[in-house]
Amino acid sequence: MSVTMFMSTLNADNPVLQGFAFYASILILKMMMMSFLTGVQRYKKRAFISPEDAAAFKGEVKLEDPDVERVRRAHLNDLENIPIFLVTGFLFILSDPDVVVALMFFRLYTLARLVHTFVYAVYVVRQPARAIAFGVGQLITLIMIIMIIVKFHQL
Amino acid sequence: MSVTMFMSTLNADNPVLQGFAFYASILILKMMMMSFLTGVQRYKKRAFISPEDAAAFKGEVKLEDPDVERVRRAHLNDLENIPIFLVTGFLFILSDPDVVVALMFFRLYTLARLVHTFVYAVYVVRQPARAIAFGVGQLITLIMIIMIIVKFHQL
Amino acid sequence: MSVTMFMSTLNADNPVLQGFAFYASILILKMMMMSFLTGVQRYKKRAFISPEDAAAFKGEVKLEDPDVERVRRAHLNDLENIPIFLVTGFLFILSDPDVVVALMFFRLYTLARLVHTFVYAVYVVRQPARAIAFGVGQLITLIMIIMIIVKFHQL
Repeated sequence: MSVTMFMSTLNADNPVLQGFAFYASILILKMMMMSFLTGVQRYKKRAFISPEDAAAFKGEVKLEDPDVERVRRAHLNDLENIPIFLVTGFLFILSDPDVVVALMFFRLYTLARLVHTFVYAVYVVRQPARAIAFGVGQLITLIMIIMIIVKFHQL
Repeated sequence: MSVTMFMSTLNADNPVLQGFAFYASILILKMMMMSFLTGVQRYKKRAFISPEDAAAFKGEVKLEDPDVERVRRAHLNDLENIPIFLVTGFLFILSDPDVVVALMFFRLYTLARLVHTFVYAVYVVRQPARAIAFGVGQLITLIMIIMIIVKFHQL
Repeated sequence: MSVTMFMSTLNADNPVLQGFAFYASILILKMMMMSFLTGVQRYKKRAFISPEDAAAFKGEVKLEDPDVERVRRAHLNDLENIPIFLVTGFLFILSDPDVVVALMFFRLYTLARLVHTFVYAVYVVRQPARAIAFGVGQLITLIMIIMIIVKFHQL
């Protein structure tokens, strides 16, 4: 019986996929918390973004509150980086990487982004704390991308 | 013949995947329309974001037009939430959920985000209309994430 | 032996997936470079976004520097479009498209976004240069979405 079978590595029994699903979920929860944190800060400082919100919560439209803006910058930095990591992770699984290396990348990236949010928006730590956390995340994404390109390069 | 086969749930015959592909497409079309709506508002109000645009369309650079900003806030809210839902959806399919439950989540999320955009940027309805639409979307994403973590938890 | 097998098209031997992995990697590298470019501009113009950065690099908090804002607008436009394309690409692979057509779409989209960034943030070219680059990208995403909907439509 000569059947050539192309199995997808995107199945629930692949430990790389299992690890990715778990750490991606943690990162997504973290991002969702940023929306929540922004809302809490807006409510605490009564600094709302839309007239209908100001009307409902007896506050005012105020776009430049520093505490609100700090949480929003941390959120924007997440938006600029985490979705990219999540797509990269899917492609990385497809490149069939070493399990230990892949899980180490996923763990370290998740840790780096948790630290990034903490030192940016929860308890401000002076630079280069945030720059290091950001850099570690960027470096891991970059290594994964290069490994994907090495596997699938073409023109 | 003892072959252990790991089938991916990410195949075109899985009704969960089919449903996800369809509703994800609707959400992506909705997001693409926000870019278009922003452009229309900028043109109508002659409030452009870059000097080369103002030169081409005989308008001026104006960053704080309230109608343009309203569409942009709705768009930013999409960016903060819909890509996360789309990645969550892929992971959710891999967790092999019940078909009926999964399709209900996808439908309800899509409806909630359509309502969110409508009451935020098309016809402004007073709060808590937008808060409810936002909350329903967040809740569904959260439930999906928890189900993914339950399936794939580890450290 | 009557085994019904549902093979995923998301496997590393599918040339559509290989092409997508490669061009998606190029697009992700391009997006990551925008963060880097923003940092370079902020450092050159000494226009920082957070007080702790201004303290570390002996600059000031300045939110409206035109060169920094230009790079940030290009980056935001990427965020509004490229993650959507990447998710669309995954769904498109699942719809089992023609290899030649799919690779042409991936190549053309990548080229359009590279041109978009160049004429927006590297060497400013007058309109409609950027509008055309943007439009080509939108059009390709739209065609892919319509093909996905045709394949998976339901309610």
